[in-house]
Amino acid sequence: MKSDREYMQLALDLAATARGNTNPNPCVGAVLVKDGVIVGTGLHRKAGEPHAEVHAFNMAGDHAKGATLYVTLEPCSHYGKTPPCAKLVKESEVSRVVVATMDPNPSVAGRGINLLREAGIEVEVGLLEEEARKLNERFIHNMITNKPFVISKFAMTMDGKIATHSGHSKWITSEEARLQVHKLRHAVDGILVGVGTVLADNPSLTTRLPHREGKNPVRIILDSELKTPLSSNVVNTTEAKTIIVSANGVEGTKVEQLTEKGVHILTVSKSEHGLNLNEMLDELYKLGITDVLVEGGAEINASFLRGGLINKVLLYMAPKILGGRNSKTPFAGTDIESIDEALQLEFDSIEQIGPDLCITAYPSVEIG
Amino acid sequence: MKSDREYMQLALDLAATARGNTNPNPCVGAVLVKDGVIVGTGLHRKAGEPHAEVHAFNMAGDHAKGATLYVTLEPCSHYGKTPPCAKLVKESEVSRVVVATMDPNPSVAGRGINLLREAGIEVEVGLLEEEARKLNERFIHNMITNKPFVISKFAMTMDGKIATHSGHSKWITSEEARLQVHKLRHAVDGILVGVGTVLADNPSLTTRLPHREGKNPVRIILDSELKTPLSSNVVNTTEAKTIIVSANGVEGTKVEQLTEKGVHILTVSKSEHGLNLNEMLDELYKLGITDVLVEGGAEINASFLRGGLINKVLLYMAPKILGGRNSKTPFAGTDIESIDEALQLEFDSIEQIGPDLCITAYPSVEIG
Repeated sequence: MKSDREYMQLALDLAATARGNTNPNPCVGAVLVKDGVIVGTGLHRKAGEPHAEVHAFNMAGDHAKGATLYVTLEPCSHYGKTPPCAKLVKESEVSRVVVATMDPNPSVAGRGINLLREAGIEVEVGLLEEEARKLNERFIHNMITNKPFVISKFAMTMDGKIATHSGHSKWITSEEARLQVHKLRHAVDGILVGVGTVLADNPSLTTRLPHREGKNPVRIILDSELKTPLSSNVVNTTEAKTIIVSANGVEGTKVEQLTEKGVHILTVSKSEHGLNLNEMLDELYKLGITDVLVEGGAEINASFLRGGLINKVLLYMAPKILGGRNSKTPFAGTDIESIDEALQLEFDSIEQIGPDLCITAYPSVEIG
Repeated sequence: MKSDREYMQLALDLAATARGNTNPNPCVGAVLVKDGVIVGTGLHRKAGEPHAEVHAFNMAGDHAKGATLYVTLEPCSHYGKTPPCAKLVKESEVSRVVVATMDPNPSVAGRGINLLREAGIEVEVGLLEEEARKLNERFIHNMITNKPFVISKFAMTMDGKIATHSGHSKWITSEEARLQVHKLRHAVDGILVGVGTVLADNPSLTTRLPHREGKNPVRIILDSELKTPLSSNVVNTTEAKTIIVSANGVEGTKVEQLTEKGVHILTVSKSEHGLNLNEMLDELYKLGITDVLVEGGAEINASFLRGGLINKVLLYMAPKILGGRNSKTPFAGTDIESIDEALQLEFDSIEQIGPDLCITAYPSVEIG
């Protein structure tokens, strides 16, 4: 007989297998246990498909009666693409429900739990809550802010350089680390760079995985003056969509030519330091983009930094020291006077990938 | 009954307790085992005191006969401040000797082992050799190169910055990390900075430990034009010695004034990019300095980098992102054209210290 914690860990592990595939929905796992035996398991595989609880109850059939349900997220209480799970749980006559964390979705937010309690079912909330919240950090952020979750990713040497003075940067990190970045692209809705990167490197910004087809994120180019060449890869390769974010009032032939090529032109207001990124994020979220991988350059990274818009940092660090007075660094932008004004984060995890390190950090504020 | 490996690990652990105290000697531990019982233990505490084997044999007395000796470094074969340990081992009538690694000292280098084998004692070499070599990386480097072991230490933000554009750097890292740096100062013979650091920060470069007296390394200032002010802390505080490294031919009142204040002026030739650091390291070693902690600034760090003179890198990374186009980075110097010309290292260990990370790396070449 396993402990509550072990069953919940299993539900979390099941949920995590679908990470990156469920957008805009959260990852959810469910385990049904009766008399010390697992009678049902399920996970939410992708938006539009059944919720985790549905799979678990289908598997359990009559065994669900009197069982305990372990579920990583509060069962939903509203009619969306599927009927409310809380209703299903109630009707299944389980005797006990253990929930890792409440649903931050304002249309659920405790209503699912209340519905079950009112039906006389014992409900416990908060087991492995931190893990559950981290698993759905993107979803929680979306629900609270109505903005995409912004991941700032950069690769640098041990002495903080991303390129030589002349811009040479191939390659800072190893093949293994670069492959992991492609897996990351596969899992996000959007990838964002400045037009400077397009002009300098002409990247295609698509997902390239060795043994399977990758899902391509939408390519988002910050380009207030529409400098993106019509001949560039982000305009001409059609396997991924492209959004060019420009300034309100931009018009002319270039707009038409880009639109003809299938590019979506999104315009936002301009602020003192460039495009209004806050407004852009609102618009991107309305377009269904729930997370964005920001891949630079240094001025773009700094705009997100100074705007307080970074939700997670992924640093790939190579065991190299480059030096060079004019070498490039990952964050540029306006100079500040004191170290105290720096963005304060907390290190979360460190992983060795080939010879490199992948260091994850979060800003020192609550998720959301 | 423990394994050979466990006894050797104990010998290594004993040796490591004296790390930083044995200069110029290596750290050595010894364990004597007879019939599954430890009958003797010892370690070399500091130069001039008995070697590890002597302590172990003193403790074991008659029990040494027929025992196995585990020793982290080949017993010495030469008369130094103490008689040769190999002779002692031979006379003790142990039946077997397990050695972690050979002594790289050219006046030993296998002679100790040969002496024992010729006396009919079974000798095995190489158990936990990597650990033993790392424990004595400084000593091995000294023996092979006749130069101090150079540790490049710097503290930076996650985006590779060591100060704002105006030089503000208090504090990048936490109190915990800064305390660890003082422990590091306690353990090295020399600490080196450029005169730029003296002029900018007027540091005293002494060891400050909270609950015990720290040992002060010799302060070494690179100062080709003798710009170090007579009023600076490195000249006026007397608890640590100061060496100012300047260019051959430097003379005048300033030399006399500094010498009067107890500063040792060491002159070396000038190369294309400044003082000849190779020559300086040779001279420092002759003065008894077996390791040097290089604490910057960025141009000094780059001189050691471009000279191929870095033996170990200690990066303290704070979970902060500073940004700023003109912020300072840890390594400056001449620009290079390609990432391939960067110094290639290997990450060795990562330790969390308070909120910060301490990341250790070694250049991708053999120790030495």
